[in-house]
Amino acid sequence: MPALPSDRPTTPLLDLAATPEDLRRLKPEQLRQLADELREEMISAVGTTGGHLGSGLGVVELTVALHYVFDTPTDKLIWDVGHQAYPHKILTGRRDRIRTLRMGGGLSGFTKRSESEYDPFGAAHSSTSISAALGFAVANKLSDRPGRGIAVIGDGAMSAGMAYEAMNNAAQAGNRLVVILNDNDMSIAPPVGALSAYLAKTISSGSFMSMRDVLRKLARRMPKPLHSAAKKAEEYARGMATGGTLFEELGFYYVGPVDGHNLDQLLPVLENVRDTETGPILVHVVTKKGKGYAPAEAASDKYHGVQTFDVVSGVQAKAPPGPPAYQNVFGAALTKAAATDPGICAITAAMPSGTGLDGFATAHPERFFDVGIAEQHAVTFAAGLAAQGMRPFCAIYSTFLQRAYDQVVHDVAIQNLPVRFAIDRAGLVGADGATHAGSFDVTYLATLPNFVVMAAADEAELTHMVHTMALYDDGPIAVRYPRGNGTGVAIPGVAERLTIGRGRVVREGKKVAILSLGTRLGEAVKAAEQLDAMGLSTTVADMRFAKPLDEDLIRRLLSTHDVAVTVEEGAVGGLGAHVLTLASDEGLIDGGLKLRTLRLPDVFQDHDKPDRQYAEAGLDADAIVATVTAALQRNSGGLAESVRA
Amino acid sequence: MPALPSDRPTTPLLDLAATPEDLRRLKPEQLRQLADELREEMISAVGTTGGHLGSGLGVVELTVALHYVFDTPTDKLIWDVGHQAYPHKILTGRRDRIRTLRMGGGLSGFTKRSESEYDPFGAAHSSTSISAALGFAVANKLSDRPGRGIAVIGDGAMSAGMAYEAMNNAAQAGNRLVVILNDNDMSIAPPVGALSAYLAKTISSGSFMSMRDVLRKLARRMPKPLHSAAKKAEEYARGMATGGTLFEELGFYYVGPVDGHNLDQLLPVLENVRDTETGPILVHVVTKKGKGYAPAEAASDKYHGVQTFDVVSGVQAKAPPGPPAYQNVFGAALTKAAATDPGICAITAAMPSGTGLDGFATAHPERFFDVGIAEQHAVTFAAGLAAQGMRPFCAIYSTFLQRAYDQVVHDVAIQNLPVRFAIDRAGLVGADGATHAGSFDVTYLATLPNFVVMAAADEAELTHMVHTMALYDDGPIAVRYPRGNGTGVAIPGVAERLTIGRGRVVREGKKVAILSLGTRLGEAVKAAEQLDAMGLSTTVADMRFAKPLDEDLIRRLLSTHDVAVTVEEGAVGGLGAHVLTLASDEGLIDGGLKLRTLRLPDVFQDHDKPDRQYAEAGLDADAIVATVTAALQRNSGGLAESVRA
Repeated sequence: MPALPSDRPTTPLLDLAATPEDLRRLKPEQLRQLADELREEMISAVGTTGGHLGSGLGVVELTVALHYVFDTPTDKLIWDVGHQAYPHKILTGRRDRIRTLRMGGGLSGFTKRSESEYDPFGAAHSSTSISAALGFAVANKLSDRPGRGIAVIGDGAMSAGMAYEAMNNAAQAGNRLVVILNDNDMSIAPPVGALSAYLAKTISSGSFMSMRDVLRKLARRMPKPLHSAAKKAEEYARGMATGGTLFEELGFYYVGPVDGHNLDQLLPVLENVRDTETGPILVHVVTKKGKGYAPAEAASDKYHGVQTFDVVSGVQAKAPPGPPAYQNVFGAALTKAAATDPGICAITAAMPSGTGLDGFATAHPERFFDVGIAEQHAVTFAAGLAAQGMRPFCAIYSTFLQRAYDQVVHDVAIQNLPVRFAIDRAGLVGADGATHAGSFDVTYLATLPNFVVMAAADEAELTHMVHTMALYDDGPIAVRYPRGNGTGVAIPGVAERLTIGRGRVVREGKKVAILSLGTRLGEAVKAAEQLDAMGLSTTVADMRFAKPLDEDLIRRLLSTHDVAVTVEEGAVGGLGAHVLTLASDEGLIDGGLKLRTLRLPDVFQDHDKPDRQYAEAGLDADAIVATVTAALQRNSGGLAESVRA
Repeated sequence: MPALPSDRPTTPLLDLAATPEDLRRLKPEQLRQLADELREEMISAVGTTGGHLGSGLGVVELTVALHYVFDTPTDKLIWDVGHQAYPHKILTGRRDRIRTLRMGGGLSGFTKRSESEYDPFGAAHSSTSISAALGFAVANKLSDRPGRGIAVIGDGAMSAGMAYEAMNNAAQAGNRLVVILNDNDMSIAPPVGALSAYLAKTISSGSFMSMRDVLRKLARRMPKPLHSAAKKAEEYARGMATGGTLFEELGFYYVGPVDGHNLDQLLPVLENVRDTETGPILVHVVTKKGKGYAPAEAASDKYHGVQTFDVVSGVQAKAPPGPPAYQNVFGAALTKAAATDPGICAITAAMPSGTGLDGFATAHPERFFDVGIAEQHAVTFAAGLAAQGMRPFCAIYSTFLQRAYDQVVHDVAIQNLPVRFAIDRAGLVGADGATHAGSFDVTYLATLPNFVVMAAADEAELTHMVHTMALYDDGPIAVRYPRGNGTGVAIPGVAERLTIGRGRVVREGKKVAILSLGTRLGEAVKAAEQLDAMGLSTTVADMRFAKPLDEDLIRRLLSTHDVAVTVEEGAVGGLGAHVLTLASDEGLIDGGLKLRTLRLPDVFQDHDKPDRQYAEAGLDADAIVATVTAALQRNSGGLAESVRA
């Protein structure tokens, strides 16, 4: 844990508000200063830890107002995504640990149920909050307990179908459901699509509501039957004046837009929402990402995610110089391929920069598609493109591709369409923790007929694999690669077209075989060197393909070595399971086979430094060596004996 | 193939229209009669095959009009779900095979790319059509080829988030995208939620558009700049008069509602849509499911899916009397449990009857939630309920749960919330084919930490498992069970609480062990009897749990038998892979182990009779016996020798 900086801000009011209960003892006129102190504290904390900055700065006043007006934790406050919840953490009893954000053993960078009763529902992926809030609201209604469900959701997150599915079902919750639309015209990148245009029009078409308007509108919501035709006319007239018709059509009472940094407006609006007898209500709050911190406000990404930084200058600590990030290797390779192949398209779900596609977007704007936070659509849209002869690359993080699993199965795999999947952030992800880990993709893809599943061992391999995918028109094909930087190998000027289903032998030995898939290859080689030094001559193969398996190579390695170990950065059901299944199908295990599979453990690993996560997972060189030596030492005299042992 | 009925209708015009090109040679005034003949032909065909009837009857005129007006197959006509496409199949060169629908080797009950160039994108799951149509439209735009994307999507399918994600991205296609909203106020069950209420309001608030109105509106769409404020006022006025504001807000030009059975209205509207220069356009067509066939119109489900039936009376062939369907065993068990446990809730995504929950809905309406076609929301809503202490059961078909995989991982498993999953239609599904098979659930769930995954071997087991789930509050738990009827065992009056992670031995033997998961147990026992008769005394275990494994039982069975075989109705990565992984982890394979895993093959199996599917898959008694004898005959003298063999 780093030493706390000496320049912690002076925060006399915040010092009094350790919990929301304390906060609610303050006077309304003290909240402006409290918010300022909270903002300073947050900037100071993130300056020392790094993390998500812009989103939290944008909701400082909203956080204060929500806890002040509503009865948390009885009222369930659910922050969509959760990366904007640092001010919320500071106000809900976690200020003493706020400088441990995203560190091993420290606070999570997202909301998390195990951290606090004020985090009723954890998040990290977007667009889940309305569904969850509805669950809380309905549960309380059924069991006749007090407590609303309050979802705070960004405009970007609203583009996901899941949010719409939840809104379509919201009516049953009545006034127990409140949705706060936090509209900053920006998720990580500027949002896209019709909803975004609609919201922009809503805001630009009128100034913020006056307080009198808000009160008048909400008063109308008090039970007083209106003739339905008159009511309808009134609704449409209101929609025309202030926007919100779309939400009204979905059954919400729309209030807004409201200035999310103006407590004099926010507090009475929320109080009226709280006291209104019908619902559900959607409050359209307009905020500014990075608000109140000049360097963030000035930056194009509003300091969405930052390294540690100097609070006064805003200058972020530079990452040490090193090999390029995998995402950028992918982006460069694809951009190059697209220059000579007009069929290549690139699709991202709101991650143009995170997936390394920003260069592609500049070079080939007409073939670049940012569909918003909409993974399901992204995949089936790609399937449609492929069915009409294009060569679409869907670049989606492993953990987010889970959002589109049925589309992968039903629209791509069953139809055997050549959609290319570039699966970023595969494996463990360090500070982002369990919710962002890409642990399951090999398992959930390699079980599908027709699929080719590759993993890149380094940035040169990734370059070859992108090239191979571009030329492969026979069906779906995926490559997975990790978060972070490459290994530093030279990136080939001319990429090689790989043979589908063929691995490569990286070093030859005689006694031990390590079958590696993906970026654990470096550790496999390190382990081999240690084993060699112990007199155990070791072969290392980079399998390249989880599907189809290189069956010839596997047969040879298993039959010519005393012990074999598979290594992969994924959960059970991946390479190891497929190799074992092959060995069983062919009877290779009948006569005795020392084969072990190293994989991610059967737990959701908490956030930590990557190296510590790998050690915990048993996926480093030491663990490989230990597995090999234990297998060799094990008496293999017979199964019955093994069981008795 | 059954004999064709002698009463095939006389269809002089339909006989002339073997393809859309032929159809387009007819005069508009002939189309009414053509539609009548098409309807008769369809009724006659489905009378002999069974299948989806009501949906197809509802779109007879729409099918004729679309092919008549648009330039199929250059224009890509994409039927959402595809079960309403029988008239489309008759009109697109497949009339000669229409009486083979859903039979082995015959036509699919859905659209399918391999069947016809008029099926540009296959379907069977709902709500994919707009995304796919957008893909075609954009591909043609990029490559400067002619051809629109035309999606025909039901109002029920519109409740899925995916449809909304696609609409949010539609603007880029311009007039190359046409969405036909086929509004019959009914998917399989009546649709639910705000969108449904909105559409009903839209229709009831005004009569159908007059032709003059349609033409006037579409004429306005021709390029002629309107002052934007005036345009906005006009848009809202129009929304107020005829509805459609919601779609206008999402960037569509809304036309409707239009009577979908009136060709005199449908044809000119579609012609105008075709010739309009801007877009995208949404045409709101109102149809009646089962239209034109009195028995279907009179039935509450509009003959959604039928057995073969007598065309004159509409009387459906009765299924032979037999054991109850699994879905109803589940529904009855849950309804009973809920009578004494007020925490139990039931959630379905638009399948109240298919999941057997209709009885629960009647008995406990306040705890029954049909969320519409919205699996993502269903799961996270359940997670919210569980987080607040309820005991939610999410009843979703295996293939549709793929829609909510990320919600299962991110909202349920990571948070270890006790959401209960009742996974119906697990395994092969006969006539519904590959798109509806539940092949992957064990693989994609058992790889997740915290999950308990069970499979019921028969209806008594399912009853015990529902009871066990109701009492299990420690985390997520799932049970899978197949399509179709139980085995006929008595259903216990008092259900038993099973020990988590414990299997049961069904019969004891000495030489061969069969480890069965789920409903292949009957075939396992049959195989055991055959093996016994061959002198190979055979143990059969019903493992009950794919996760956690009954490790003690597995160790014992592997160590005390000469050969062991796992059997499951699921793809690679399930029980077999987990047993192999355990055997490898513990070194049980080191000294030689004759272990084989039987599972679904690595292909998407076409629709056929279940028994033939099982034989094809190698999952019947004969295949088990053959696997055992081959394993026993195999020389296990050594791995190197095995490989050389």
